[in-house]
Amino acid sequence: MAPIRNARAYYAATPTGYIEPDVHVKYDESKTIDVDTVELNGGFLLKTLVLSIDPYMRGRMRDPKIKSYSAPFDLGQALYGYGLGKVIRSEDDSYKPGDVLHGWVFHEEYSVYKGPLTPFVPFRKIENIGLPWSAYTSVLGMPGQTAYYGWKLYSKAKAGETAFVSTAAGAVGSLVVQLAKRDGLRVVASSGSAEKVAFAKECGADVSFNYKDEKVWDVLAREEKGIDVYFDNVGGEHLDAALASANRMGRFIECGMASQYNGEETYTVKNLGMIIGKVLTVQGILYNVLYYQLADEFYATMPQLVKDGAIKYREDISNGLETVGQALFDVGSGKNVGKRVVVVADD
Amino acid sequence: MAPIRNARAYYAATPTGYIEPDVHVKYDESKTIDVDTVELNGGFLLKTLVLSIDPYMRGRMRDPKIKSYSAPFDLGQALYGYGLGKVIRSEDDSYKPGDVLHGWVFHEEYSVYKGPLTPFVPFRKIENIGLPWSAYTSVLGMPGQTAYYGWKLYSKAKAGETAFVSTAAGAVGSLVVQLAKRDGLRVVASSGSAEKVAFAKECGADVSFNYKDEKVWDVLAREEKGIDVYFDNVGGEHLDAALASANRMGRFIECGMASQYNGEETYTVKNLGMIIGKVLTVQGILYNVLYYQLADEFYATMPQLVKDGAIKYREDISNGLETVGQALFDVGSGKNVGKRVVVVADD
Repeated sequence: MAPIRNARAYYAATPTGYIEPDVHVKYDESKTIDVDTVELNGGFLLKTLVLSIDPYMRGRMRDPKIKSYSAPFDLGQALYGYGLGKVIRSEDDSYKPGDVLHGWVFHEEYSVYKGPLTPFVPFRKIENIGLPWSAYTSVLGMPGQTAYYGWKLYSKAKAGETAFVSTAAGAVGSLVVQLAKRDGLRVVASSGSAEKVAFAKECGADVSFNYKDEKVWDVLAREEKGIDVYFDNVGGEHLDAALASANRMGRFIECGMASQYNGEETYTVKNLGMIIGKVLTVQGILYNVLYYQLADEFYATMPQLVKDGAIKYREDISNGLETVGQALFDVGSGKNVGKRVVVVADD
Repeated sequence: MAPIRNARAYYAATPTGYIEPDVHVKYDESKTIDVDTVELNGGFLLKTLVLSIDPYMRGRMRDPKIKSYSAPFDLGQALYGYGLGKVIRSEDDSYKPGDVLHGWVFHEEYSVYKGPLTPFVPFRKIENIGLPWSAYTSVLGMPGQTAYYGWKLYSKAKAGETAFVSTAAGAVGSLVVQLAKRDGLRVVASSGSAEKVAFAKECGADVSFNYKDEKVWDVLAREEKGIDVYFDNVGGEHLDAALASANRMGRFIECGMASQYNGEETYTVKNLGMIIGKVLTVQGILYNVLYYQLADEFYATMPQLVKDGAIKYREDISNGLETVGQALFDVGSGKNVGKRVVVVADD
């Protein structure tokens, strides 16, 4: 076959605030690939199906001189992140043509991989039970698994307790709300728009509020029994207020600090002393570290619950690599409702 | 017998910064007590022997309108805190005359108690094995037990790892340094004077530095293998630097945030995001919560190690309730070397 287009979304410039489409992330159609003849060197050729667009990606779009726990993206190179792809050709016995894999994939139509991009994020073969592929990047992907692992491993939830969840309508938060309700907790849910407030309520939140309309301090102060578990996706003022409202022996699951990602001044958390006074446990979580503990349990149980409608989820889907920049802006600025996904190909 | 003097140290005014002797804490000899006839109402009369003067007491000397996890002291009333006393008379079958008890005691020469001052801090009978009573308020008292419980329950220490300890020459820190060395860790110790640096070194610290001479960031940056355990007694900039230097899956034991107690502006901890990125566990600890898990083990093992000289400790002792105010200033301003103790009576 003749070479065909191999479009990509690449990292074009380092943002100082929000990611601007066509400035910091650009779409490029200039490259081609011959899928029949491209050298595999013992690896495999993957056709990208779906990309998961996640807030943490902002942290990789930085000056490489700034140290952080994640590797920075390389200017001029295709972005990469969680997603699904289908094996087209393979010289690796672990993967056969037709296999659909979840893992870190490049933001381009076709790529050759020799093992995973990083040993921390493996490729996993997905056995679909009749759900759209996108579900495996959202409620069944990295965000859903992050919610599940964090909640199951660190909430120590007991029926009758109160959980507080921020970005409660997001891909992680909306599953946390549902897991908390399934465990018999009262749930207080914070999000940033009327539509998100409604979705968190639909997921079962007992109190669902818009933090732009009402101060998080005021809402939590009304909870007479205090907060036993805080699942934190935003940090900053939410974290401060949760520390103030926490009960003794409370558990804080730190999943994200999205309020601090876009270069605004660092919020001064004034209640860190409460960690001591209330004997709190504050646990940071990362998908790729917890994966090995609970992934098999997750894949064995959650897809069927999602298929049965017992677990709700929402996606905000756009099509084509040309929408990656906008998608990154959306998740950074809270524009999306539901997990932001870019579909690159249907199969 | 005729009534005798019952001197006390009382809370006279609310400090805004450091505690000033004779201003915020006053000594008063005006009261008397008849130890033979004072009504016990089913309780017991205790003669105060030794008082533990601890940094956390500053937090109770506040406007009662300011909510915090600890109850505020009452203006005009005797202070109270950890200490030892001897039972003189008793109508409570649990306590016999001559018993020496550790628990919360009033800062006065004689007091009648009916059970403990708070259910959270029990009275415990001390079986002395030939140590000065003061040892049971320092290395074997609340600070020593806090160090022991925190380290044993939450350090998850492995030989070859690196521990960082702040206020490393203090009553808590100096025991943590020794426990860490006994577990085979490399220990980096921070304190605030040349004398303290020397004592932390004597306790076994591999690196012992004065944070006033050298920036904590710079010292930690030299630790090529990073920090696996941080035992935090000061919070603020030390905590921020430890977050920056922590290894993945590091354990932070939050015991005190002394740098934030005296009304200076709250330090902005900029590296809270590292809790997530490095999958850290940050655990607050309080003596009275952990006591019930490990106290019997502690009292069964540690006094003998102290008596044998296998565990070093230092005390900074003054005599008489008239020295309480100065002692509180000392611990708040870092003037003491070794555990600050006030001896009220020898027996």
